[in-house]
Amino acid sequence: MSKQNIPLSIPNIRGNAWKYMKSCLDTGWVSTAGGYVEKFEEKLAAFTGARHAVAVVNGTAGLQVALRLCGVEPGDEVLVPTLTFIAPVNAVRYLGAEPVFMDCEGYMNLDPVKTGDFLAGCRRTPRGLVNKKTGCRVKAILPVHIFGNPCDMEAIMALARRYGLKVVEDATESLGSRWTEGKYKGRHTGTVGDFGVFSFNGNKIVTTGNGGMLVTADKKMAAKAKYLTTQAKDDHVRYVHDEIGYNFRLSNLQAALGVAQLEELPAFLKTKKANYEVYHRGLEGIPGLTLLGVPAGTAPNYWFYSLVIDKKVFGLDREGLMAALAADGIQTRPVWQLNHLQRPYRGSQAYKIERAGWFWQRVLNLPCSTSLTRAGALKVCSAIRKVWNA
Amino acid sequence: MSKQNIPLSIPNIRGNAWKYMKSCLDTGWVSTAGGYVEKFEEKLAAFTGARHAVAVVNGTAGLQVALRLCGVEPGDEVLVPTLTFIAPVNAVRYLGAEPVFMDCEGYMNLDPVKTGDFLAGCRRTPRGLVNKKTGCRVKAILPVHIFGNPCDMEAIMALARRYGLKVVEDATESLGSRWTEGKYKGRHTGTVGDFGVFSFNGNKIVTTGNGGMLVTADKKMAAKAKYLTTQAKDDHVRYVHDEIGYNFRLSNLQAALGVAQLEELPAFLKTKKANYEVYHRGLEGIPGLTLLGVPAGTAPNYWFYSLVIDKKVFGLDREGLMAALAADGIQTRPVWQLNHLQRPYRGSQAYKIERAGWFWQRVLNLPCSTSLTRAGALKVCSAIRKVWNA
Repeated sequence: MSKQNIPLSIPNIRGNAWKYMKSCLDTGWVSTAGGYVEKFEEKLAAFTGARHAVAVVNGTAGLQVALRLCGVEPGDEVLVPTLTFIAPVNAVRYLGAEPVFMDCEGYMNLDPVKTGDFLAGCRRTPRGLVNKKTGCRVKAILPVHIFGNPCDMEAIMALARRYGLKVVEDATESLGSRWTEGKYKGRHTGTVGDFGVFSFNGNKIVTTGNGGMLVTADKKMAAKAKYLTTQAKDDHVRYVHDEIGYNFRLSNLQAALGVAQLEELPAFLKTKKANYEVYHRGLEGIPGLTLLGVPAGTAPNYWFYSLVIDKKVFGLDREGLMAALAADGIQTRPVWQLNHLQRPYRGSQAYKIERAGWFWQRVLNLPCSTSLTRAGALKVCSAIRKVWNA
Repeated sequence: MSKQNIPLSIPNIRGNAWKYMKSCLDTGWVSTAGGYVEKFEEKLAAFTGARHAVAVVNGTAGLQVALRLCGVEPGDEVLVPTLTFIAPVNAVRYLGAEPVFMDCEGYMNLDPVKTGDFLAGCRRTPRGLVNKKTGCRVKAILPVHIFGNPCDMEAIMALARRYGLKVVEDATESLGSRWTEGKYKGRHTGTVGDFGVFSFNGNKIVTTGNGGMLVTADKKMAAKAKYLTTQAKDDHVRYVHDEIGYNFRLSNLQAALGVAQLEELPAFLKTKKANYEVYHRGLEGIPGLTLLGVPAGTAPNYWFYSLVIDKKVFGLDREGLMAALAADGIQTRPVWQLNHLQRPYRGSQAYKIERAGWFWQRVLNLPCSTSLTRAGALKVCSAIRKVWNA
């Protein structure tokens, strides 16, 4: 990368990373054995307040296993947001189940009101809640804490209880996000549903290269997750397998990096918030631009900074601003293509999608690396202001 | 691990591992970006003579993708050996397809004669070869080069051509194994079938913690494999996905270790062969013990050293010898439980399994780390001789 350029979100490797990884190389414990996997699990559980944590090869794998442990079976349906990275939707399909796409609310998160409307239209049967339109059983809700902003979990959990559904929180983007008010005051995202899943992909707030973590309050489910993610060995010497498992374990080497990264997380969270404030002040007063806010009663990890562009007022649309910033060496990103419009999911049910398309047209995500300096963030603000003045 | 003890198969990290991995940390390129993934792919292709190589998160993932690229669809059948680690069998099921279990020949590899008998009993139809018993389409053969000994690929490829089947070589255990005679003289295992898959798990001849590589001679298929294993992004900025992909990429960090390990591979192969010779001479003349040999016209990587125990002559069965060696701090392993007897596969078809059970009862694998010294191997021989004398 050129030093002139400002990337969207890159890893920030520092602290004890090399020390811990070198110890893996020096001892030869780079794979299954070692001790860093357990340390990483314990440290993440301690930080988030999760009762149990199971390291996995990546967030997608964690979501797949969490859904399986929820009892999602082929032909079942799972309610997912259409506005999200495609991984949680694919995880539903890996199990032979079908996504039903939901709209988002004002923070781009799963809309609990519309989700409630959809569920009210389902039929309660002895085999569970049934989608009248498809005849399939609705088994779970999979909210994603988009860009780090916590979903309205009070409303979502109330729906889950009312309709007998399981909840998997996709917290892959929201490590460090928590509630400061309400029923879940003090709780971290990922620790409220039946399962939560974090990601340590290279663009996340902490990284292990690739990697993930499944958390749950249920001790038996945590043990089952460990069993399934390590090839379901019922006898480790004779290789007896009573279930179909997965090769989803995280290496000791990556876990060593994870431990070092978690040590830096409190400082990274401070930087993320500080840069949000820089952007907030730096972009204030530019007509037609709004930095997406924070849901009331939450302290997010500020993973991504989403700028909402009103083309009519600002004079340039999202594509135009993205191109102008790219010319200045500043990398930005639109939100993902909506999943109900992706080719593999065009046949799936999408329930009254309206707001997701509105955001999809207008949002541009600004550089957010934890190595981004105040000067760097100010440079981005100046570049945006320059476009506005032009 | 205690220095007194001799483990079965542990990583041997040396050479440039520290240098390459530290460079990833120093630059921050630990995840997707970097350059080591491409280097690792190029280096493995050059070593094995494969035209194209695609790094993946592990061997299991590589097998799943290879089978999908062979056109294996839900309800199809794939011929697999019953005597193998369960991963290739699970890969078939991940795609919603069914394994049909085959017996092994005298080197514990897929028996091409019985496989031919099975295929001769199938029906040719417009939609492909159909298993008369199940009515399902037989789509592919998945031979595994067990413990590094090359399968009879001439016979297997001839069957595949005759019956219009695809072939995925599970070369996860056989990196460095090749043919020295016959049609495939000079070729490496993994490069003969439509696809080959290597593994770099911690117990393998070279390791990346966890990791794998898919190889193929088909450029389009290689590009498709890269696409599917990196979440099937048709637009990397706007996240458009025209297919259901997977999060199966290898991190730059792990690839860096892989490049360093491949530099050591020629020396590791020499050590593996030298220790085989030590065992061979050291165990000679002990009645009832046979070190499994090498198929004619092949130069295997000698990944595992399999001792076949004739209990009646030796006086102790496999379990007895394993326990006696364990008491001496020597770790050994039986072969895997046969897959047609594993709980998830008891309903699957198993075709005339005979020899696999014979091996399953009698084989004990001896310590085979590339860090095992001549003195260490001799110590194992002495311990076995002591048991025999007792």
